[in-house]
Amino acid sequence: MNTSTAPQVKSTEAGERAAACIAQFANETGAYDEEAASGRLKAIAAEQEAAADGTWTPSTEELHWAAKVAWRNSNRCIGRLHWRSLHLFDRRDIRTAGDAYEALIAHLRFATNGGRIRSTISVFSDRIRILNPQLIRFAGFRHADGSITGDPMLADFTDFALRLGWEPARRGPFEFLPLILQAEGEAPRVFELPDDPDVALRVPIRHPELDFEPLGLQWHALPVISNMDLAFGGLRFRTAPFNGYYMGTEIGARNLSDVNRYNKLPEIARLMGLDTRRDRSLWRDRALVELNLAVLHSFEQAGVKMVDHHTASEQYLQFEALEARQERETTGDWAWLVPPVSGSVSPLFHKEVRNVIKTPNYLMRDEAYP
Amino acid sequence: MNTSTAPQVKSTEAGERAAACIAQFANETGAYDEEAASGRLKAIAAEQEAAADGTWTPSTEELHWAAKVAWRNSNRCIGRLHWRSLHLFDRRDIRTAGDAYEALIAHLRFATNGGRIRSTISVFSDRIRILNPQLIRFAGFRHADGSITGDPMLADFTDFALRLGWEPARRGPFEFLPLILQAEGEAPRVFELPDDPDVALRVPIRHPELDFEPLGLQWHALPVISNMDLAFGGLRFRTAPFNGYYMGTEIGARNLSDVNRYNKLPEIARLMGLDTRRDRSLWRDRALVELNLAVLHSFEQAGVKMVDHHTASEQYLQFEALEARQERETTGDWAWLVPPVSGSVSPLFHKEVRNVIKTPNYLMRDEAYP
Ligand code: HEM
Ligand code: HEM
Repeated sequence: MNTSTAPQVKSTEAGERAAACIAQFANETGAYDEEAASGRLKAIAAEQEAAADGTWTPSTEELHWAAKVAWRNSNRCIGRLHWRSLHLFDRRDIRTAGDAYEALIAHLRFATNGGRIRSTISVFSDRIRILNPQLIRFAGFRHADGSITGDPMLADFTDFALRLGWEPARRGPFEFLPLILQAEGEAPRVFELPDDPDVALRVPIRHPELDFEPLGLQWHALPVISNMDLAFGGLRFRTAPFNGYYMGTEIGARNLSDVNRYNKLPEIARLMGLDTRRDRSLWRDRALVELNLAVLHSFEQAGVKMVDHHTASEQYLQFEALEARQERETTGDWAWLVPPVSGSVSPLFHKEVRNVIKTPNYLMRDEAYP
Repeated sequence: MNTSTAPQVKSTEAGERAAACIAQFANETGAYDEEAASGRLKAIAAEQEAAADGTWTPSTEELHWAAKVAWRNSNRCIGRLHWRSLHLFDRRDIRTAGDAYEALIAHLRFATNGGRIRSTISVFSDRIRILNPQLIRFAGFRHADGSITGDPMLADFTDFALRLGWEPARRGPFEFLPLILQAEGEAPRVFELPDDPDVALRVPIRHPELDFEPLGLQWHALPVISNMDLAFGGLRFRTAPFNGYYMGTEIGARNLSDVNRYNKLPEIARLMGLDTRRDRSLWRDRALVELNLAVLHSFEQAGVKMVDHHTASEQYLQFEALEARQERETTGDWAWLVPPVSGSVSPLFHKEVRNVIKTPNYLMRDEAYP
């Protein structure tokens, strides 16, 4: 793990990158006139020289703008229409794992907001590391026979948490993993995620017509990605967890249905009385649609914000049109943008899009965490 | 239009391309030992020199092999497991549009085979051009108010046929387009496609449980692509129509459901009693699955060969495994290979694949036809 306390510079052209970033910031926001921009650049240059590694310290306003634009530039995200609405918590002053934990709980409370989810990012200094890939995830408990209770994708991380001394109250299929936080120079510490709906809200999955009760399905309200770096101006913030709200298919067509995740389609198909012996009965497709319907219905019933993939596709087209008006090309990653259910029904299926990475952006973290 | 009678060479390294092709042919088939291969190459070189444009004449055996390998190399095709089973009709001797028409009818008869569809290619010389994009397609008749009866994708081609003097017996939604064939130096001629189930088989679309009768849907049994060139050894055969059988989603998730094709999902959803005012009711997704089920069911009832997208995905994985055993990388085009229904349920969704174009291959024709 890198032990410097500030975000790392990725290039020797540190000055140029910072300058380009400030120019874009000034241009888009109008926050700096020419004089202010040139003053700001001088200050940054001085800081970069002193730091030797090219690091500079964005203002909170610059940071907020970069976080929003990084969202706008996230090629795999279908939800980018709302990029201007991102809330920022600037947590760069935090130095201890305990304080980071409090700040993350505050993030979750603010973002959850009784189901009226707010898109939010908290940016820490690199003195703090979050080892979880997402802030809220369900554990995957391994049994001696190799089977897993819970989310198989999180089984390695669950093992890691247990090795660090985590003592789960129960070992059911939907137990929140603890947060594992590490302050610079210290060992990783395990913090329980409170099973409190104001912090980590659960939504039981019911179907409007079918009896899904026996499946005992649920999911959490908030997707909070914590394994991507916020990159801009030659800097890389490694601890910058962000959340939006869910598109239904993420839960219905991936988390609960992927064969290497909760793999619930066979059970749902049996519950629906479908013929699971023949591929041609389309039992998987029918079960998939009903599961996705149940997810949307359940979030609506629970008063938790969620978008369906049809509405999201339309909103993406709106985003693209608004960007075009600003003379900005919308780049994107087709394979991620087209929803995993009824692909060809989405207008995005029928469009071409260039997968060119712009900056600011969110980049998958390049360090091996457990 | 190009008026030379032989396939065109695309490069100055005509000799090298032919040599590489013959070497691959000899290596894969064992048809030529070293001596035979070198003799064959001398003959090809002499022919290329005489032709000045680098053209050479593959033997029927070489042509057959190239057509099969071009299928094997078709990155967008999920049906490649069966590449060895391709039948060839070598029609390079045909010189008149009338004879070409007879040959195409023979192709359709042979391939249709009472529903036990045979994958088949007919290769003509460039003296013959087929102007249709597929041999069997339904017309799209434009009305004064801009609406279209039939397949909107074929409206331009329908206009073209009408301008050439085509007199359709009816102007319903499922009228076969005529074949439009052109012999070198002549005007395009219109040939009626006989409404004979041995030549152009129709399958009425019924649902196993729902009453689809009022929709009056049908499709044709045979997909015969006629707008791609067979390219190998520096040659490009511009008239080489080929067919396999359908994967259900091509009809259910594209031809009958795309908004700019037959656009039947709203009608089906209403017939199912779904709430089409709310995206979140997933009426499109539910209607899409039932339409696809109906397509598979109807082809099965009619005794017409068709593969579902689950079986096709599994067969693609088998193909890939067999290719790996031959130490050949399977290249592919992810966006085309992943089925347009329930994408993430297909194992192909979760794989990466390189979209590198190998030769022999089928390439979209580069001439503007109507
Ligand atoms: C507001 C509601 C939002 C919706 C509905 C939404 C929707 C989505 C969806 C469906 C994906 C694909 C996820 C997958 O298939 O695993 C995605 C990916 C992504 N989104 Fe969004 N998003 C939202 C908010 C945000 C926010 C607030 C950010 C950042 C500030 C963001 C950045 C990203 C990034 C970086 C990815 C790619 C993740 C990866 O590579 O694994 N999104 N989004
Ligand atoms: C035997 C049954 C076959 C099946 C089930 C099958 C399946 C498919 C499917 C589903 C597609 C995508 C079509 C689309 O989305 O528009 C496709 C594309 C393609 N297939 Fe196959 N195929 C079969 C036979 C063949 C044969 C015999 C050939 C050539 C000899 C072939 C060559 C191709 C090519 C070149 C494409 C790309 C077409 C384009 O770019 O528009 N396929 N196939």
